[in-house]
Amino acid sequence: MIYLDYQATTPLAPEALAAMLPWLQTQHANPHSAHRAGRQAKAAIEVARMQVEGIGPAGAGALAFTSGATEALNWAIKGTTGPIVTLATEHAAVLDTVAAEARRGRDVTVVPVGADGLVDLDRMADAIRPGTGLVAAMLVNNEIGVIQPIAEIATMAKAAGALMLCDAVQGYGRVPLPAGCDLVAMSAHKLHGPKGIGGLWIGDGVMLEPLLHGGAQEAAGRSGTLSPALCAGFGAAALEMHDRENDDDRHLDRLWTLATDMLAGWTINGSVRHRYRGNLNLRRAGLDVARLMSDCRDIAFSAGSACASGSGRSSHVLRALGLSEAEARSSIRIGYGRYTTQDELAAGLDAIKAAADRQRVAA
Amino acid sequence: MIYLDYQATTPLAPEALAAMLPWLQTQHANPHSAHRAGRQAKAAIEVARMQVEGIGPAGAGALAFTSGATEALNWAIKGTTGPIVTLATEHAAVLDTVAAEARRGRDVTVVPVGADGLVDLDRMADAIRPGTGLVAAMLVNNEIGVIQPIAEIATMAKAAGALMLCDAVQGYGRVPLPAGCDLVAMSAHKLHGPKGIGGLWIGDGVMLEPLLHGGAQEAAGRSGTLSPALCAGFGAAALEMHDRENDDDRHLDRLWTLATDMLAGWTINGSVRHRYRGNLNLRRAGLDVARLMSDCRDIAFSAGSACASGSGRSSHVLRALGLSEAEARSSIRIGYGRYTTQDELAAGLDAIKAAADRQRVAA
Repeated sequence: MIYLDYQATTPLAPEALAAMLPWLQTQHANPHSAHRAGRQAKAAIEVARMQVEGIGPAGAGALAFTSGATEALNWAIKGTTGPIVTLATEHAAVLDTVAAEARRGRDVTVVPVGADGLVDLDRMADAIRPGTGLVAAMLVNNEIGVIQPIAEIATMAKAAGALMLCDAVQGYGRVPLPAGCDLVAMSAHKLHGPKGIGGLWIGDGVMLEPLLHGGAQEAAGRSGTLSPALCAGFGAAALEMHDRENDDDRHLDRLWTLATDMLAGWTINGSVRHRYRGNLNLRRAGLDVARLMSDCRDIAFSAGSACASGSGRSSHVLRALGLSEAEARSSIRIGYGRYTTQDELAAGLDAIKAAADRQRVAA
Repeated sequence: MIYLDYQATTPLAPEALAAMLPWLQTQHANPHSAHRAGRQAKAAIEVARMQVEGIGPAGAGALAFTSGATEALNWAIKGTTGPIVTLATEHAAVLDTVAAEARRGRDVTVVPVGADGLVDLDRMADAIRPGTGLVAAMLVNNEIGVIQPIAEIATMAKAAGALMLCDAVQGYGRVPLPAGCDLVAMSAHKLHGPKGIGGLWIGDGVMLEPLLHGGAQEAAGRSGTLSPALCAGFGAAALEMHDRENDDDRHLDRLWTLATDMLAGWTINGSVRHRYRGNLNLRRAGLDVARLMSDCRDIAFSAGSACASGSGRSSHVLRALGLSEAEARSSIRIGYGRYTTQDELAAGLDAIKAAADRQRVAA
């Protein structure tokens, strides 16, 4: 199996697994217990918190651990008040949540994007008004890898007195996170940490209504027993992200060059320049993607975002770029990164190209 | 370290860890991806779901995985409508959540319990009326181990047309779960599974508004990427609970007899008869529990529930039994189970008794 689906999830770093194992094998205490074993577990969580904060936004704030980015985004959105402005290409965890808030009577504006997937800042400026409560924009799009101008959007939010929420899931630790965000959502398993944990970074002074009520085990008001194993794995993965930054970037550049050379005849969806280079979302006119996936059973890649897979809906992101239904349905997403070798990527893309060629569609 | 804090959390079963490891070491796909690796991960989750359902309520329904019991309880409560009736001794994840619902205007009745910790069924019958939306009652209390008459309460709820929610966290797989529940919350790490995962069993036909909006990866409308590792660990732990039922019960009876003999001079808080025998919450007049915990640093036990630890609040459960502040503050909780040996328990209780004796308080 050649794994080319890094936007859906990333392989767990061996260092993250090593950090998790003691908390699965021998140390079992509840980190919220007052006895020594509990305090040791709590200390491990605090170390992990600093490691994850260490690759996070500049500025004064603190990380609250959550079960993942979905919880973090639901919390950030439902925990605030006032009108919401967001983008048409946000993740379902944002768009479905703001839709639920709209059903409760909250005003929601969804700003469209251009053909390159980038928000039109003039339209954004029109939408963000004095009284806006929350502006939500993604750092790196999960489907097309496009990087939004978060700094500019955050400046507009601040000027209007709104809180700025950045869904940084696909970029956290890899793409610079501009200053000016009040809330930043992240997910461990997108940066070689374990599934089942994420976080919400909360700027100092930002008050959120809790989403999960209970023992309030996290300072910011999030309830529920934390897993020292998951926290330690997240922390170790963040530390690796930090320590390997240059190596990872150079490796990614090589993979990007290789992939774009090999797929030169395909059309890349979304901006090439403003893009995380570990994402290649592209199309070929007339391509039958279901058949392609069936023909390339030993290669893990995506027909769209994993979140929409199996739902029968075509991608709302690709449609927001103005693609026709046929174009959206002839698009695939290739994702690669730290553990993808050049040989693996070349072999995977060779097989995909050959299978596409067998469909006798235009290059 | 002698671990006597089984109500805070239980040691991970070796079988659960073994089931988790492949999903941490070599198989990394997102279970919601459409490719083969994703489908394999999804299949593991479905096997785990059946294993966890296998020790769950009789009747038609299905398990939705959640990040833990706190999320499950928040979801069950916030996802329903109408007046709520619950008990004074429920976990903070219920009481804080119904308080939040009350602030939004929902009618909430909290029924008191007797000195034995058991609900007065007449008062419960008065509180549950036609139009009640939700009745929430715990199977086994996390602090005092008292088993509530869930079957009787569920019958009242049904007669009134209300949904019956049972917080089964401390009893799931160990204490029979009566029929008649519509919603059952559980947590893996209380039954030798991993921290970071739990579930909400939802009876057929029960409609819940989602708590976490997004990709709706779980059929019941719960969003967020599931961890195959955590699901597999939960499933394997449930299977062990099932397979070792008789051995576990006999072992628990031996430990209970040993502990109650050794601590014969102490006063047990809550009903002895209607009790999960892995919980011993008891007090000794004048005992300084902080000093006791400090003197018994190598024994992990609790001064109250882990959820309230460090908060400075004395236990709302003990106060609901009518204990004075002094009595509540002189109480400790001893929890033991499958992996506690008789020698360990005896050694731990010896040390606790000796330290208490040194305080020269009444036995």
